[in-house]
Amino acid sequence: MKLTKKPVTGMKDILPREMEIRNYVMQQIRETYTKFGFTQIETPCVEHIENLNSKQGGENEKLIFKIMKRGEKLKLQEAQSESDLTDSGLRYDLTLPLSRFYANNANDLPSPFKALQMGPVWRADRPQRGRYRQFMQCDIDILGEASNIAEIELVLATTTVLGKIGFKNFTIRINDRRILKAMAAYSGFPEESYDEVFIILDKMDKIGIDGVAEELVKEGFAQASVDKYMELFRLITPDVQGVQTAKEKLEGYLDPSYADSLMTIISSVEATKQADFRMAFDPTLVRGMSYYTGPIFEISMDEYGGSVGGGGRYDEMVGRFIGQPVPAVGFSIGFERIVMLLLEHDFQVPHAAKKTAYLVDKKCSDGQIRTAVAKAMEARKNGDTVNVLVMKKNRKFQKDQLTGEGYTDFEEFYAD
Amino acid sequence: MKLTKKPVTGMKDILPREMEIRNYVMQQIRETYTKFGFTQIETPCVEHIENLNSKQGGENEKLIFKIMKRGEKLKLQEAQSESDLTDSGLRYDLTLPLSRFYANNANDLPSPFKALQMGPVWRADRPQRGRYRQFMQCDIDILGEASNIAEIELVLATTTVLGKIGFKNFTIRINDRRILKAMAAYSGFPEESYDEVFIILDKMDKIGIDGVAEELVKEGFAQASVDKYMELFRLITPDVQGVQTAKEKLEGYLDPSYADSLMTIISSVEATKQADFRMAFDPTLVRGMSYYTGPIFEISMDEYGGSVGGGGRYDEMVGRFIGQPVPAVGFSIGFERIVMLLLEHDFQVPHAAKKTAYLVDKKCSDGQIRTAVAKAMEARKNGDTVNVLVMKKNRKFQKDQLTGEGYTDFEEFYAD
Repeated sequence: MKLTKKPVTGMKDILPREMEIRNYVMQQIRETYTKFGFTQIETPCVEHIENLNSKQGGENEKLIFKIMKRGEKLKLQEAQSESDLTDSGLRYDLTLPLSRFYANNANDLPSPFKALQMGPVWRADRPQRGRYRQFMQCDIDILGEASNIAEIELVLATTTVLGKIGFKNFTIRINDRRILKAMAAYSGFPEESYDEVFIILDKMDKIGIDGVAEELVKEGFAQASVDKYMELFRLITPDVQGVQTAKEKLEGYLDPSYADSLMTIISSVEATKQADFRMAFDPTLVRGMSYYTGPIFEISMDEYGGSVGGGGRYDEMVGRFIGQPVPAVGFSIGFERIVMLLLEHDFQVPHAAKKTAYLVDKKCSDGQIRTAVAKAMEARKNGDTVNVLVMKKNRKFQKDQLTGEGYTDFEEFYAD
Repeated sequence: MKLTKKPVTGMKDILPREMEIRNYVMQQIRETYTKFGFTQIETPCVEHIENLNSKQGGENEKLIFKIMKRGEKLKLQEAQSESDLTDSGLRYDLTLPLSRFYANNANDLPSPFKALQMGPVWRADRPQRGRYRQFMQCDIDILGEASNIAEIELVLATTTVLGKIGFKNFTIRINDRRILKAMAAYSGFPEESYDEVFIILDKMDKIGIDGVAEELVKEGFAQASVDKYMELFRLITPDVQGVQTAKEKLEGYLDPSYADSLMTIISSVEATKQADFRMAFDPTLVRGMSYYTGPIFEISMDEYGGSVGGGGRYDEMVGRFIGQPVPAVGFSIGFERIVMLLLEHDFQVPHAAKKTAYLVDKKCSDGQIRTAVAKAMEARKNGDTVNVLVMKKNRKFQKDQLTGEGYTDFEEFYAD
């Protein structure tokens, strides 16, 4: 069979220039999160199909790369459906595997457990510009901590990383799933339709508030409910005061402590932050995943239209594995989007080492080559980068190419 | 369906302690190889099934995790065999994807191209102690360099990393596939049986030289050939002198320049090495993969029975993708085995940062929590690791646990 040069559909080869930026960002993330007390862990990229299909992943469950059973377990003739042929798949996020990991290893982990994960995930999405079917996720999660210190620390850690990488003037939008629900309840939407309402609300960015109202009516929701809902969005401002308004307005529909907690998170982060960003209460923030149970957040950057990360509290997911509730909250940085922004801005990774190329003439004896290599070994020991290369006929072209790769010093070795 | 807590068969969760060592080793590898002029790249974990099945991977092709076609492309009813259902699979090594990568991106890469790859690969091997179905590979390869400077640099780079991580007194065994073939030819084995002969020779470690002779005879090879072969192994000593003997003895069967080149590699590495190891010519070294065309090498450590890495020259593989020959040579470090050895020796990763835990009493006001968090942010800015935690009822137990995680300083915050 003919060999194929291109990567598989929707996935990409990563060249040195991009890889250098990726490594730099990963290093900043690892260093910063470590300072906040997070420890890194890893789960296998392959996960049980029954876990992946457990209705925790929302739309992502439709996008699983499924792995075929092997050997005797694969019974092609007897197979009635796809599910008879598969026993596992590639993970589509890091949250579901983390929940399994915690359930499997809780006895060997501290409580609370502050996890850092960096690794690839896969979704068989329709390929489109800038979105790939394999992409890196970088998550921090705090498991076993119910207090809002968890949210405060997650937001501070994430924003500190973004600041270190050089991002400024961004926004952390925050909401609470329970405020979202209380607003829907107050407006009189039937409880079984909340998810449908939120899916439409989530289009706010694209279609505006009037578009949302229009679509809700078109979907058959009562005009009175839609009007009441829209009135709420006009009253509740995107700041701490807005949370206070929500708390008062939604009396009877919302436990006031949820609003208090949200105000504490916002004001504590604002008082202690070190990066250049602001926190904004956003009553229209939905977050797709149905597993969120409390505060939810998202990073917005003007220079990038959409979200460059997000997260929230999901107090019930781990419990599905372990049989008892475990409070959990996580924040995921949009690694690929950050790398894309840095690439677009022609970001230069800071280099400490001097980069020297040794060009060795082809006619050099073994002894002369050895002299060059020995010298290179000494320079490397002292911290330099040294690339030992056979000299090409077109030395000028070779040097230009190496200059393009960041080599600033050249040394030539000729036969006597 | 019930959720499953354990990882999928043969794969493992990586806990903080191991992850810290893995990160440390990866960092040493990346830093050291960068100083040798290697640049990191990445290929997708998913590869075209026709590439994986291209007869380059030897036995590994039987161990592929295959991914099912999706959507309309999956025609379950019409499928006659497994291959009708799959279009891709998880890579089983990094060499095949690198060859595809080079063919796909050669115009954007320097020549020679010195690649560093670190990433997971998958093999559906029978699970056994210390061997997993997902494992990390760390490869360096030089593509486009025919001279033995490539081999010298690869061996020096690899051994420098091993030395940095603390390994001593190990051996780099080296041979050349063409010497291996010349020895078989000289002994009178038929050319079509070379692979069979080498598979038996490869058991030398386990069954000894007499065992090899016995098995060759049992497999039906001529006694005269076996005797001649055994005589060679007695004559050819495991040192530079052995290469000289092979060169003389195999006259007419071996291009003498191959032996000269091998002697140059050995003596150049010996003269310029900085780590504590020795290079040994080993005429019994085979290396499993059929794609090797020239020098081959393997790392042996007494404290670990088997090989902890290996590589060699494979001048024909990239050509299968690109349509013209591209000289190539690679060296793979046995990352998982190195991590295993470090874990067994209770290796301590050097820590620079002071680790402090702030224990915040539950009764603290929002303002008091804010004071603790603000102080933590300052300390982190100054390089410390600070973990802000809610104080537990059993403070002694909590502190003991944190001490176990490496926290040396504690600060307590109480409500007024």
